[in-house]
Amino acid sequence: MADDNKFDIAVIGGGPAGLSAALTGRIRNKSIALFEHLDFSQKLQKAHLVDNYLGLPEVTGKGLMQHFAGHALAHGPTLVKEKVLNVFPGDKMFTLLTPKTTYEVKAIIFATGVVSTLLFEGERDFLGRGVSYCATCDGRMFEGRDVAVISYTQEGEHETAFLGELCRTVYYLPQYKGDFGHMRAPIKVLSAKPKAITGDGQVEKLVTDQEELKVHGVFIMRQSDPVENLLPGLELDGEVIKVNRDMSTNIPGVFAAGDCTGKPWQIAKATGEGLVAVLSAITYIDK
Amino acid sequence: MADDNKFDIAVIGGGPAGLSAALTGRIRNKSIALFEHLDFSQKLQKAHLVDNYLGLPEVTGKGLMQHFAGHALAHGPTLVKEKVLNVFPGDKMFTLLTPKTTYEVKAIIFATGVVSTLLFEGERDFLGRGVSYCATCDGRMFEGRDVAVISYTQEGEHETAFLGELCRTVYYLPQYKGDFGHMRAPIKVLSAKPKAITGDGQVEKLVTDQEELKVHGVFIMRQSDPVENLLPGLELDGEVIKVNRDMSTNIPGVFAAGDCTGKPWQIAKATGEGLVAVLSAITYIDK
Repeated sequence: MADDNKFDIAVIGGGPAGLSAALTGRIRNKSIALFEHLDFSQKLQKAHLVDNYLGLPEVTGKGLMQHFAGHALAHGPTLVKEKVLNVFPGDKMFTLLTPKTTYEVKAIIFATGVVSTLLFEGERDFLGRGVSYCATCDGRMFEGRDVAVISYTQEGEHETAFLGELCRTVYYLPQYKGDFGHMRAPIKVLSAKPKAITGDGQVEKLVTDQEELKVHGVFIMRQSDPVENLLPGLELDGEVIKVNRDMSTNIPGVFAAGDCTGKPWQIAKATGEGLVAVLSAITYIDK
Repeated sequence: MADDNKFDIAVIGGGPAGLSAALTGRIRNKSIALFEHLDFSQKLQKAHLVDNYLGLPEVTGKGLMQHFAGHALAHGPTLVKEKVLNVFPGDKMFTLLTPKTTYEVKAIIFATGVVSTLLFEGERDFLGRGVSYCATCDGRMFEGRDVAVISYTQEGEHETAFLGELCRTVYYLPQYKGDFGHMRAPIKVLSAKPKAITGDGQVEKLVTDQEELKVHGVFIMRQSDPVENLLPGLELDGEVIKVNRDMSTNIPGVFAAGDCTGKPWQIAKATGEGLVAVLSAITYIDK
């Protein structure tokens, strides 16, 4: 592995919490890989007007996100536009897997935003047995077969195009508004709500509010994956990552900050936690 | 008591944590009394350059404090330039005592900054028996007698001038740099370091690194008083206020935020905690 894939700290997520962590981490002279595979916080960018981030009165969500990203990136964290699919704890180092390659880091900060609250019925049972979060990784297993893609982000369209080159039929179920005219056969765009994934040992059907689709695989593309799938053993408190006052989790070297640690879902809470998390991560590394 | 002395929430301290709490409290339409008897955060104002408050690159401490105060005060918290001397929990309401008057509030947020780490030897033992934190409150008890004032802030000079009108001798021991030429008899300015307060049941002497001063009273003027003296029963964790993740303390209706809850002593941590504290206070009030 090349040295440029090794970092002191991986920050997973480029919203306010992740950017705050990256900023102070760089100021404290640590190498930071900032994983942000989308266009920074989509949630914040949709906010019409934010007026309770102290010192920046009456800014649009989009303006605030630009301020934030500009400030943090000016300090030179390495922006990695890849989705982290899995984290493997190792001896003193963690290995992060993306669709493209792997990275090694000494500490990790999860700043993945609001955890999608509901898994689909059957989703967890069939994970690795037909359910996948990454077409690039798992697509080839479904060559010549039928699959469905449930997507909450536009990014799903690229993954689906790739599946379209491999599979016999690809049902695309976008859960966002958009223009899907560019999607060609064998892709079929359906405006249905997914309900459950069923099968016998392996995925056999995706049940929607309109019909039952016979498929061998179901790809689910959310803005952030259920974090417990990313790093098994990470302790949750309900649906959020359980953290201590110093933003440490139950796994040494793993920290969390922002919406993924719970309410209130507010910018100042996220930036404050990002700061605390990175300082705690630095203390952990330097020990 | 006039209604204008009643508020939903008292925020004690006008640094980043207190201003953040006041801002979001007002946006959430609660009445807020912001107690700041000095000129906002003196510590932050001394910071040469701050570059890790996300979204506001390379600002001076003074500039940042002006941004912060301007933003929060524009939303109309009531700025009370009085020092909170005591907090009395009551039936559903807390009473706050200042040198001028009293206030009633439903919830309290301590944002008092770094707690002065060391009490003087004898300070706690003689509290109320010669040791006082308020000349306006207790000065008359020492009419015609000798007292000492240990002061860490310029504000102590006003209190000392008042004592000079009452007492036989007032030893003034400033623990900061300044020009004391304006202080007239019976005030004697001493450049000594206080060491201990001694006596037999009542204060008899202030021991310094240079001499022993025979006094009946010792007034101590810090930027913030030891918080456990303000509200007896408030649980500490070492020298800082013990808080839960929602910034609640062991006393229902009492919250804390910022440096007074512990390290890291950083702006984003303070503003984040101020925000969380006020939202928790609002939840408490609305219950």
